[in-house]
Amino acid sequence: MNIGIIGAGSIGLLFASYLSKAFSITLYTRTIEQAEEINQNGILLQKGEIQSRIIVKAFPLSMWKGTEELSIIAVKQYQLRPIIEYLNKLDCIPKNLLFLQNGMSHLALLEKVDAAAILVGSVEHGASKINSYSVRHNGEGAVNIAVFKGKSTTLSEFAQACAEIHFPLTIKEDYYQMLVNKLIANAVINPLTALLQVKNGELISNTFYFSAVKKLFLEISSILNLEDPIKKFRDIINICKKTGDNQSSMLKDVKAGRKTEIDSILGFLLDEGAKQQKTAVNIETYYLLLKGKEQTRGEVK
Amino acid sequence: MNIGIIGAGSIGLLFASYLSKAFSITLYTRTIEQAEEINQNGILLQKGEIQSRIIVKAFPLSMWKGTEELSIIAVKQYQLRPIIEYLNKLDCIPKNLLFLQNGMSHLALLEKVDAAAILVGSVEHGASKINSYSVRHNGEGAVNIAVFKGKSTTLSEFAQACAEIHFPLTIKEDYYQMLVNKLIANAVINPLTALLQVKNGELISNTFYFSAVKKLFLEISSILNLEDPIKKFRDIINICKKTGDNQSSMLKDVKAGRKTEIDSILGFLLDEGAKQQKTAVNIETYYLLLKGKEQTRGEVK
Repeated sequence: MNIGIIGAGSIGLLFASYLSKAFSITLYTRTIEQAEEINQNGILLQKGEIQSRIIVKAFPLSMWKGTEELSIIAVKQYQLRPIIEYLNKLDCIPKNLLFLQNGMSHLALLEKVDAAAILVGSVEHGASKINSYSVRHNGEGAVNIAVFKGKSTTLSEFAQACAEIHFPLTIKEDYYQMLVNKLIANAVINPLTALLQVKNGELISNTFYFSAVKKLFLEISSILNLEDPIKKFRDIINICKKTGDNQSSMLKDVKAGRKTEIDSILGFLLDEGAKQQKTAVNIETYYLLLKGKEQTRGEVK
Repeated sequence: MNIGIIGAGSIGLLFASYLSKAFSITLYTRTIEQAEEINQNGILLQKGEIQSRIIVKAFPLSMWKGTEELSIIAVKQYQLRPIIEYLNKLDCIPKNLLFLQNGMSHLALLEKVDAAAILVGSVEHGASKINSYSVRHNGEGAVNIAVFKGKSTTLSEFAQACAEIHFPLTIKEDYYQMLVNKLIANAVINPLTALLQVKNGELISNTFYFSAVKKLFLEISSILNLEDPIKKFRDIINICKKTGDNQSSMLKDVKAGRKTEIDSILGFLLDEGAKQQKTAVNIETYYLLLKGKEQTRGEVK
């Protein structure tokens, strides 16, 4: 099976590295320079003490024709809009598109995309991009995939092959539940850790932070009309425990002065709240403080 | 006039330095070691490029008999309780006591103090303690003083002498208004700058932070039942402009891993809100996040 991967950030590089064991991978990058570097060096995958070099073909995005059996779109939510405009100008209608964005605000965009099947996924692997062709796999985690629109003839075959190369993924029936579960954890852990500049575990070990976690969760639960909030809250505690020593992706983004995913996470929840005429003071405040962090990034302090 | 100054932090050292030009000053310190260092070295006062050495007598607090014409209590609000217990065990009833704490939660404590006159003050000088006997005067500001209880025969004489040595202070009629004005600015600027780790000016130059400032101010205004909120809000903007390049005292405390004055500022407002059965989601959240910062101080990250 031919697979195209669009975007060579940490998740794009990680997927390209692992999936190349079973599939013919083409990686599409934002810049010509990055494609050249990957073609020259391969992808350097660091996992614990082991480093491996994986040879994949790389091209700039403009070479993507959408003809692969499966295309995995691994860009950030805020980079999605031009990709979708590009997609809709392709000569062919793509077969299977898999979108791996965090949050849920991209779903509205996906409604406008033409493809035989549109899949969405949530990725719980920990990965850091080291340079344009190197990625560190910090921690194994689940990959969940669900059909968002259309009918995929490829998905079960894809999942089967992934299991054989020990890069397992789980097919979920209900894309909304799948994404909501990830969203809830992201919406609590990411903004708080990024604002407080603490590791995930501190949100539960620090009693005051834990009170703030609860208050934020209650607003999220109300907006999402969660049926079993206690279970969902326990899930968050478990993630904080299990990833206690990790820095959340948003904390890393803020520290590195990068744009964050705050719009697709808390921004989405604020939009949902507005539709239901629910106020969410904490969500609103955390949203403002993180947008403020984005506004000052790159400024000399 | 003999003046006793209790507490040799930045404000205690600053007041001792300036007031010694007109008065006989005795400085009472928390530790014997600090008293010895001040007796040996004098106080080193740094202002801009100019450094001066001021000779004052220093003793540990246990030597304080409360017999000075005026005693200035320049400890933090959270250090006040043992001082007041000490005061109430003195053999004599002190004449004039001037309390310089931030916030307003100390007023309840002052009700229990016996003295001919109890004065409260708000200090807007910028000062940093460099070591146990050195202080840097970062910026000149107002000193406002008002009678809280009793009748002071010394206050106008004191103010007159302070004017002559160019360390002016203003006598205010209404202690509550005076402290509220300082509280409002402290309650907005301190928690936000300490949490976001930014200088005062960024709260108004960053449009998202400025929205957060407005939301927090509205809750404070509601709890304090402000009569002229627009004027008070303009005052805050002006302080942020005027002190744009300064770090707030709470930001400095958080950076240095010290206890902050959050209890006497936002803690006081939460208590006031509870009395009036007003919810204050932002105040509550900022309180929790700053208390959390205090909880982790000194911990290895």
